[in-house]
Amino acid sequence: MMNHQLTLRTMLERAEKIFPAKEIVSRTLSGIFRYTYADYASRTRRLSSALESLGIKKGDRVGTFAWNNHRHLEAYFAIPCMGAVLHTINIRLSSEHIAYIANHAEDKVLLIDEDLVPIIEKIKDQLKTVTAYVIMTDKPELPATSLSPVYSYEQLLAQSDDGYQYPDLDEQTPMGMCYTSATTGNPKGVVYTHRSTYMHSMTLGLADTMALSESDTVMPIVPMFHVNAWGMPFASVWFGSKQVLPGQAPTPDVLLDLIEQEKVTITAGVPTVWLGVLQLLEKGDRTRNVSSLRAVVCGGSAAPRGIIQTYEEKYGIPFLHAYGMTESSPVVTVSRLKSYQQDLPYEQKLDIRAKQGLLVPGLEARVYGQNGDVKWDGQEMGELWLRGPWIADEYYKDERSKETFVDGWYHSGDVAVIDSEGTIKLVDRTKDLVKSGGEWISSVDLENALMAHPAVFEASVIGVPHPKWDERPLAFVVLKEAYKGKVEKEEFFSYLQERFAKWWVPDDVVFIEEIPKSSVGKFLKRTLRDQYVDYLTKS
Amino acid sequence: MMNHQLTLRTMLERAEKIFPAKEIVSRTLSGIFRYTYADYASRTRRLSSALESLGIKKGDRVGTFAWNNHRHLEAYFAIPCMGAVLHTINIRLSSEHIAYIANHAEDKVLLIDEDLVPIIEKIKDQLKTVTAYVIMTDKPELPATSLSPVYSYEQLLAQSDDGYQYPDLDEQTPMGMCYTSATTGNPKGVVYTHRSTYMHSMTLGLADTMALSESDTVMPIVPMFHVNAWGMPFASVWFGSKQVLPGQAPTPDVLLDLIEQEKVTITAGVPTVWLGVLQLLEKGDRTRNVSSLRAVVCGGSAAPRGIIQTYEEKYGIPFLHAYGMTESSPVVTVSRLKSYQQDLPYEQKLDIRAKQGLLVPGLEARVYGQNGDVKWDGQEMGELWLRGPWIADEYYKDERSKETFVDGWYHSGDVAVIDSEGTIKLVDRTKDLVKSGGEWISSVDLENALMAHPAVFEASVIGVPHPKWDERPLAFVVLKEAYKGKVEKEEFFSYLQERFAKWWVPDDVVFIEEIPKSSVGKFLKRTLRDQYVDYLTKS
Repeated sequence: MMNHQLTLRTMLERAEKIFPAKEIVSRTLSGIFRYTYADYASRTRRLSSALESLGIKKGDRVGTFAWNNHRHLEAYFAIPCMGAVLHTINIRLSSEHIAYIANHAEDKVLLIDEDLVPIIEKIKDQLKTVTAYVIMTDKPELPATSLSPVYSYEQLLAQSDDGYQYPDLDEQTPMGMCYTSATTGNPKGVVYTHRSTYMHSMTLGLADTMALSESDTVMPIVPMFHVNAWGMPFASVWFGSKQVLPGQAPTPDVLLDLIEQEKVTITAGVPTVWLGVLQLLEKGDRTRNVSSLRAVVCGGSAAPRGIIQTYEEKYGIPFLHAYGMTESSPVVTVSRLKSYQQDLPYEQKLDIRAKQGLLVPGLEARVYGQNGDVKWDGQEMGELWLRGPWIADEYYKDERSKETFVDGWYHSGDVAVIDSEGTIKLVDRTKDLVKSGGEWISSVDLENALMAHPAVFEASVIGVPHPKWDERPLAFVVLKEAYKGKVEKEEFFSYLQERFAKWWVPDDVVFIEEIPKSSVGKFLKRTLRDQYVDYLTKS
Repeated sequence: MMNHQLTLRTMLERAEKIFPAKEIVSRTLSGIFRYTYADYASRTRRLSSALESLGIKKGDRVGTFAWNNHRHLEAYFAIPCMGAVLHTINIRLSSEHIAYIANHAEDKVLLIDEDLVPIIEKIKDQLKTVTAYVIMTDKPELPATSLSPVYSYEQLLAQSDDGYQYPDLDEQTPMGMCYTSATTGNPKGVVYTHRSTYMHSMTLGLADTMALSESDTVMPIVPMFHVNAWGMPFASVWFGSKQVLPGQAPTPDVLLDLIEQEKVTITAGVPTVWLGVLQLLEKGDRTRNVSSLRAVVCGGSAAPRGIIQTYEEKYGIPFLHAYGMTESSPVVTVSRLKSYQQDLPYEQKLDIRAKQGLLVPGLEARVYGQNGDVKWDGQEMGELWLRGPWIADEYYKDERSKETFVDGWYHSGDVAVIDSEGTIKLVDRTKDLVKSGGEWISSVDLENALMAHPAVFEASVIGVPHPKWDERPLAFVVLKEAYKGKVEKEEFFSYLQERFAKWWVPDDVVFIEEIPKSSVGKFLKRTLRDQYVDYLTKS
């Protein structure tokens, strides 16, 4: 058999040759822009040619700082197909981290959406490797800027060759990189190869995964700077799907408009997006026609069972729960029912679909517990380990790699159980798991139970050192205003005793005014742990 | 990214771990046998262990001589996963060719279905490399046989270890081989690798290809000794689909029974199979419930437009036309409508779907004509060249490789046109094309037109040498009994002039009693060409 290399060139050329008439719809600062794959491919070749004229060579990193729009999509293929590396920078990071990753990746050129230029201007003096800034704007003139040397994306394209021919690359050539936040310290970089992105894209077309098809109209809401919008733009180009790119900071209102007007069939985003859209739907101030949707993909964090149910029962929108991370390109599992589970009562089906789901074809998983691989009983907990063609084997130039990539397996840091059907359910992060008397207790399960209590506004559970049991769970509860001073901790002890094994019940419940949170709103358990480290030992 | 090897082990283990309860249904000589993927995987591991005990090592070829049944499916994974090579021998070849390919492949062990043993007995003295014959039978005792040394498949499995652990193989390891008939001389061997079969299997799961899914019940009618039943058994195991294997020489009656009883959702076979099934349906002697079918895949040779239409309009069975060959694993194109073609009138849609279709993701094609790559105008003819991860780059130990595999492209020998939508339509074989005055004439188009004439029973068109035009077409017509002596050749000249450019019309029409045919019923144009070589030059 031919040792034909699995590269993005063949993916782009398929759209260019076989689907020249299919459309890409892009929401820009000046309104809705639409063009065909024929135009797209021509401009993509021009961009490669332009980058070459700016000195970009094979292996160089080119950073993007942009929303989900057509120019970003051009960069998605122009940069990798010429052999360079597409570094999608998360625009929501702190200035300090943006500067760190641009320097760490040694980005040579930055492509920047017009409205995001001020963010880069603020850190321009810290950027050590950038030799050219390219501003992406719909306007004929560049905005006034302190960036230098600075170029207009559109002017560069106008001067460039749309006959640029892509080289034959080795499939192990790096094609892209994303940085992922770390619990402590700087973000960690993951480098994708042509092979890994090609294989991951193919997976998205599988009937039992997302079934992405030419007949789909695909709208990734998840940002193109966040694990490549879960790989959907790559697969959509390959399969000739119509794409709808919702642009700068799309509101639920904008998203519903696009779904309705462009007849979106599949879209993808994190739970908070779906919560926002749901709130708007629930207001009922307009009748929205969302009947074109065949799937709403939800990932990034666990989709609450209630959201899945409301979307499906009330609005007839099928919900597809998926799981993955930056290190896995990202798709690891998709939660679909097996054919023989279709006849179960709806509540049971919902229980299954609220789990993370089944491993997609191509990946291998282990759930590694205290005594080796766990039993597939849905009970025994262990850390989820992964390997496969689109799983990272290191962090880019980072000493922390050796903690995470061990003996050929990626140690995800997620604690999971797996049942006899092979369905994976996450129960915690390894660092948040409470290790008590040689057994593991899921802080997430306890928190979810507490937060379902009518008096609780928010709750968190951590493990704190204990002289006899190593660790014991300690619960923190923020009461709703109306319940303050009216509920005792005993209420929560008995509430949890009804729901969990006795040894799972926290040793104490501490009432506090607020759970400490990070800048993006995640609970900072580390702060609680630092503060309460001797809570059970000092007495 | 991990350089995780694309091997069949991960495919088998997915079924074993995630779909242990799913079923395989196998029609054997003693009736319907059914078991689960858990049983299947256990017996597959036993088979590997048994083959090891017979001396099979990495790289050794193991021949199968069997129908589509569960034991053959066990061999499909047991042999490749241990690093050996699955050589599926076509049971319909001549004894001479069977002996040739078993010797050429140097098969060390042969696995033989009980009812096929007499065929091998006849040639046993010619087999130079076989060290063990294994008979696959449902009976407790082996049949009397002259083969030696001979073993019982079931006894070997009973004695073997179901905990056999598969090695980590390089993805370039050969996993299988098939021989394809040549126009002259011995069959030519194609060797598949783990990587090529893995990639091809993934393609079968794509939404726009066959969309094979866990929810499918897959029945390959195309034999497992014919390009691996088009790869469906590999993909079905991987995706956990229920499989129905129709066993020894299934009749249309048997096939319809299995479709109805097992609720088959997708099945695949050559046009003659679908013609046979259609004849039975048309008889209407029974009411068959075929409503479970979501697709009938038809390939091997072009599906006549009329068959597609009858299946769909009269029986509501969706027809899926596909194209490929042994050298391409085999799937090259699938004929599906693009989303914007769905609104065309039915007749136009049928025209598109009767073509070979769109190249599947992963492959690259050129249509190479007299002046290089042809225009994509649906008119200009050229030879179809292919490359991709599941396209062969040589024939196994065969001097003829260099004629077919040139500069990284597989020259298919099929003449095609390609239109502006990228839809490929075959028009001839290169060797049958008539080259007249620097232009090409499709013998197939002329034959099809002649055979649609009411007076014609069968017809063939060949190119014969011509002093001025190099070649000119010459037509052979066999009249239906009722028309013999009543139709003149002028009738066909004017009939063809209405339908083709003037220079396409054959120089003469020769009435003969029968078109010479091969043992499998194909027209022997070579015989006609030899006989009529000086027909236009001698006068």
